[in-house]
Amino acid sequence: MKAALVQAARAQTAVVLLSGGMDSTTLAYVARDRGYRIIALHVNYGQRTEGKERQCAQRIASLLGAVEFFEVDIGYLARIGASALTDRAIPVKDHADTGGDLPATYVPFRNANLLAIATSLAEARGAEAIFIGAQASDYSGYPDCREEFMEAFQQVIDRGTRETTRIRLMAPFVHMNKTEILRTGLALGVPYRETWSCYRNSDRACGRCGACHFRREAFREAGVPDPIPYGDE
Amino acid sequence: MKAALVQAARAQTAVVLLSGGMDSTTLAYVARDRGYRIIALHVNYGQRTEGKERQCAQRIASLLGAVEFFEVDIGYLARIGASALTDRAIPVKDHADTGGDLPATYVPFRNANLLAIATSLAEARGAEAIFIGAQASDYSGYPDCREEFMEAFQQVIDRGTRETTRIRLMAPFVHMNKTEILRTGLALGVPYRETWSCYRNSDRACGRCGACHFRREAFREAGVPDPIPYGDE
Repeated sequence: MKAALVQAARAQTAVVLLSGGMDSTTLAYVARDRGYRIIALHVNYGQRTEGKERQCAQRIASLLGAVEFFEVDIGYLARIGASALTDRAIPVKDHADTGGDLPATYVPFRNANLLAIATSLAEARGAEAIFIGAQASDYSGYPDCREEFMEAFQQVIDRGTRETTRIRLMAPFVHMNKTEILRTGLALGVPYRETWSCYRNSDRACGRCGACHFRREAFREAGVPDPIPYGDE
Repeated sequence: MKAALVQAARAQTAVVLLSGGMDSTTLAYVARDRGYRIIALHVNYGQRTEGKERQCAQRIASLLGAVEFFEVDIGYLARIGASALTDRAIPVKDHADTGGDLPATYVPFRNANLLAIATSLAEARGAEAIFIGAQASDYSGYPDCREEFMEAFQQVIDRGTRETTRIRLMAPFVHMNKTEILRTGLALGVPYRETWSCYRNSDRACGRCGACHFRREAFREAGVPDPIPYGDE
């Protein structure tokens, strides 16, 4: 009762990194479920599927009742190159063709760029938390998705912002797999038909890239149908 | 002799954050003096004096023999607002009018944004070092200019890049004052007539903002004339 009154007096605000995919959408619903007012931060970094993701992110922010939708373009990551997500000369491989290496969709230090922007926005707006949907344990193997990276970034936030600023970096999915995230989202009523995961830019999700592969596997494991159409169905 | 041969075989590369001001210009000459090939990274963040700074940075990169000039626009920092450097509704105060508070030219978490970009570029190019001209001790009081921030960011780099990546974050001026930086640069023959420091956007440096104040003080203390013209002279 007392907690509810305190919360009513001053709801805390969170900057949520919202790409428009299923993980970050679930993340935004988790943040809302924890009582945060949501500032949705959508970052374009020259990825092939930019337009689709933006559209999904805007729709979800609106469904969620986000207090702000802040869009940032960091096209320089595309110019820095060296990733199949941004460099159109490097093809996106089908999931079946990738070995154990770091995938070609690796964007060097991408999450640090996203978190730096999120922290600037959070400090300027007086937000108390940043939510990022990174996962260490599943398919990615990206070094900037691991918990030890998040812990180090929390230090950077603590040391690099004003003395009076307190921003908590939340990565609630860091030790979850995609099926666990999906189950969390299903319980919160996340509208997965509004999300986009595929790495390829076609009308329908390709069903064959790494992102589609793991998305479909998660729905299969959770025992519910994926509400989006696939090109290979 | 042996060191010279090794260096000839494979010179190390450094990404240098080069704004075009006197500190970052001195920094680039320090990096070159230490034997690095220079990739100049110039970041516009919607500051009032963007055009002038870019022109200076390009000229200096060319004088230095930089192997690459990489320009990035992070105009979103201007949209995030809350700083007189980027928000044109907040006036730049004269140095004499500022109290002990964090100055209005504070851009929230700016250096983390710059270092995230620098790290992405360094990892993509295989560079071994990043140089940033931050100073903790002098006029700024910005939390993301302190050594403890740099140490935390080194951890983020180590944990957030590929296992085979080794990038050293160098902030050689973190404990220097502006006069010491200037003396270092004068010894290396830095062409200070090509640099721009003023926070105001006029034909000549205003001579009265914080940046001009400390620049002139440094030249006075070093006992050499500042080669740039001032509007109040």
